[in-house]
Amino acid sequence: MTPTTADTDTTRSGQAGIDSAVPEPTSSAELESIMAASADAASAWARVPAAERAVALRAVADRLDARSSDLVTVAREETHLLDGRLTGELTRTTFQLRLFADMLDEGGYLDARVDHADPAWPMGPRPDIRRVLEPIGPVVVFAASNFPFAFSVAGGDTCSALAAGCSVVLKVHSGHPRLSALTGSIVVEALQSVGAPRGLFALIFGTQAGRDALTDPRVKAGSFTGSIPGGRALFDLASSRPEPIPFYGELGSVNPTFVTKASAAARGAEVVSQFIGSFTLGAGQFCTKPGILLVPADSGLIDALRSAELPGAAPLLNDRIQSGYAQVLRELLENSAIQPLSMGDAATAEPPAPTLVATTVAQLLADPDGLVVECFGPTALVVSYEDEAQLLDVARVIDGQLTATIQGEDDDEIAPELIRLLAKKAGRVLWNQWPTGVTVSYAQQHGGPYPATTSPTTTSVGTASITRFLRPVAYQGVPDALLPPALQETNPLGIPRRVDGKLAI
Amino acid sequence: MTPTTADTDTTRSGQAGIDSAVPEPTSSAELESIMAASADAASAWARVPAAERAVALRAVADRLDARSSDLVTVAREETHLLDGRLTGELTRTTFQLRLFADMLDEGGYLDARVDHADPAWPMGPRPDIRRVLEPIGPVVVFAASNFPFAFSVAGGDTCSALAAGCSVVLKVHSGHPRLSALTGSIVVEALQSVGAPRGLFALIFGTQAGRDALTDPRVKAGSFTGSIPGGRALFDLASSRPEPIPFYGELGSVNPTFVTKASAAARGAEVVSQFIGSFTLGAGQFCTKPGILLVPADSGLIDALRSAELPGAAPLLNDRIQSGYAQVLRELLENSAIQPLSMGDAATAEPPAPTLVATTVAQLLADPDGLVVECFGPTALVVSYEDEAQLLDVARVIDGQLTATIQGEDDDEIAPELIRLLAKKAGRVLWNQWPTGVTVSYAQQHGGPYPATTSPTTTSVGTASITRFLRPVAYQGVPDALLPPALQETNPLGIPRRVDGKLAI
Repeated sequence: MTPTTADTDTTRSGQAGIDSAVPEPTSSAELESIMAASADAASAWARVPAAERAVALRAVADRLDARSSDLVTVAREETHLLDGRLTGELTRTTFQLRLFADMLDEGGYLDARVDHADPAWPMGPRPDIRRVLEPIGPVVVFAASNFPFAFSVAGGDTCSALAAGCSVVLKVHSGHPRLSALTGSIVVEALQSVGAPRGLFALIFGTQAGRDALTDPRVKAGSFTGSIPGGRALFDLASSRPEPIPFYGELGSVNPTFVTKASAAARGAEVVSQFIGSFTLGAGQFCTKPGILLVPADSGLIDALRSAELPGAAPLLNDRIQSGYAQVLRELLENSAIQPLSMGDAATAEPPAPTLVATTVAQLLADPDGLVVECFGPTALVVSYEDEAQLLDVARVIDGQLTATIQGEDDDEIAPELIRLLAKKAGRVLWNQWPTGVTVSYAQQHGGPYPATTSPTTTSVGTASITRFLRPVAYQGVPDALLPPALQETNPLGIPRRVDGKLAI
Repeated sequence: MTPTTADTDTTRSGQAGIDSAVPEPTSSAELESIMAASADAASAWARVPAAERAVALRAVADRLDARSSDLVTVAREETHLLDGRLTGELTRTTFQLRLFADMLDEGGYLDARVDHADPAWPMGPRPDIRRVLEPIGPVVVFAASNFPFAFSVAGGDTCSALAAGCSVVLKVHSGHPRLSALTGSIVVEALQSVGAPRGLFALIFGTQAGRDALTDPRVKAGSFTGSIPGGRALFDLASSRPEPIPFYGELGSVNPTFVTKASAAARGAEVVSQFIGSFTLGAGQFCTKPGILLVPADSGLIDALRSAELPGAAPLLNDRIQSGYAQVLRELLENSAIQPLSMGDAATAEPPAPTLVATTVAQLLADPDGLVVECFGPTALVVSYEDEAQLLDVARVIDGQLTATIQGEDDDEIAPELIRLLAKKAGRVLWNQWPTGVTVSYAQQHGGPYPATTSPTTTSVGTASITRFLRPVAYQGVPDALLPPALQETNPLGIPRRVDGKLAI
């Protein structure tokens, strides 16, 4: 690894202590210094062998684990989330870093391809040409509010960008600034401990600094997890740059769940209780919360939901989310197509009590824009249908989703067509499971057509997410010693490659 | 394959005869009919097994080959390109269709991943989750002027979109409308002959129809090959839709070539003659034309280039390209930093004589925006340098490129750093070869950072281009019989997959 060291000064807290002060917005001068260092670090980091980048990711994971008690304490103070949830999320976050380290060691993510020269290539003689994925350059990551660890400072996009060989400038979410400063300083300390380039990772604070960073010509990609208006504004900014750059925004999703008639008959009570658990998990503050449940009108599930006991009120992440939630819920309740189903006086109170509202599938199909609305918090819309064919109609009209779920029986006649339609709209299709709880694995897909994301061809969770921060480069006729090791003839890295069209492990 | 048939009426010529009339612009009513059919066809085509899509691609290739004489005749009339070039380009086009068919049969392009349920997964129990790439939906392809076969009606983007399982609405380039109509009708006939869905492929004519198609909500991706202003306008349109969609534009590139001192000394005459061959190939109308040649000031290469015989004048593709070329060249010549090097009276005449102009690296570095300009036609800028370190300076200031080329010796001290810098700027880095002539293979990369393209993470040539028209979908807990075959437990397609993190062929 390069002999230069990371610089803790690039985080605002200066050291990995717990700072009680909320950091000030990053100034223009500070941002310029951070961006210059990030660009230099990106060049250096891209040259660091993947195996050493893996070591760095593990070092970050180890230091975060070692500080879990402090991290959870600060997170609790800033987010109102419970310790169990926070501890689990931190476990997920450090696991993710280690999983990506393992992926770097394996090397398949490079999609290395070697085409030897072939004078008999049917379209005309083929030169020696070799292709590999390389880091895209400095990345700006906009942290989310609702996952203070897993989608924030040391979260998925930071992990995959660092793994890919990119530098990261992380725009802190205003919902947990002190936790962000602490996490950031631990990340920088860890990177410093293994000799990573100075400026490889830095925090910035404030909306203006975030916009300025995204439009900085040194930045080559952006990522975001948050609301539709916020994400769209940043996407538009990234796209309107003189040099437009990829912007990976994860925005909104209602995550519809479709309960077939057979499923309602066979296991209605289980569906009801599991649904309640899923839509109220974390006070409904998951992007994968099942916000719409379609149930047979004649199944008794409506009554069961009306009479079911819902969990107690729990405080939301912060005042802004509380007021946004209350406003969307009030607008829904003012819609004449919506009836309260299970709702106390505290529906829009602070903290809000979990709430179910209801409509019919005919009303939903008549006004999807008005009724299929993400309400970020503990509310869901129960939609009654008469005929299972109406489930297909709903699948056809909904916008892009992160997830879509079917509660069904294996021999449901509607299942193949419903799955097929939902796969066109959602990044992940579930069967008899619930969308909250997103595992980090090789096959995970967290994405989907707009407005679920601004980039339907990528994922923000799972090992495949590294690809969003990589770009392909081909080398034609380059002498072996001058090729990246991944492409050299003897395959010194021992990675899977596609050689003359054939996969070789 | 589905029993419905393709409909030749979706091309304007109605049958695969040679029509002497130039088609009229597509009307709004016609476009609506085409888009509706394309959306239906996309749904049907996505369900057709990849092996049958491969059969369809081969049928298209066979029918184009069978009509090569007619195709080349019409192409010659409309483009002024020579028969040898056109025949070779058609060979490349049909080869490409067959290569993609082979890729469909192999199946690795699906990036299929199977994660079995794992209760011991370190972050918490893992559900069964499986991920595969699926077609993105209807695609609008904007054809290029300069490759009437390979980047036009039946060209790369059409091939990869159809291979991916998408329907294609192709916006014809105004430079070769009759050839487009003929090619389109052959494509539709071929698709019809194997029972592909009606409306799977259709031509549209006219700028407004193209814009309307790109903003049609049924369309899920766009692609383009052409100029920076035209491509940027369409990128902006695609990005500003209510549902923004991926837009794969290939725009502009000057393809700089760096001649080291050792190379100039060892093989200067060869470099000169090969450079002249490359920049004048096809009258300089390649997106990979080496538009800038950096040579040592003291090497004698400047004199050799000044006295070398250039090929004769050749007509450009059409009047618009001719007038655009003449205007850019005149602007260059008015720049006081530019001197004529090898230029006759016919430099901006019609047809234009190949022309070399010259500047110094100091002048180029002082005004890269003014001097590093794509001049689409038979002109190149020769840049003299004193110190090889200046090559690194140029590599640092240039914008994104499709290609960058080094003419060097293996032991050139500057080579490793120059290659590293150029790999950050270009999609393809060449060594002692020339960028014109883009092979279609597994490892090809035709792309690059903006303004070379609007999508630096993708390619428009080579088998990897299929990925741009695919999006990932994960299936969680879905019963085996309801999974896409690519993900079923027994791997009935026999494709390479990543199972529990391990590649299995």
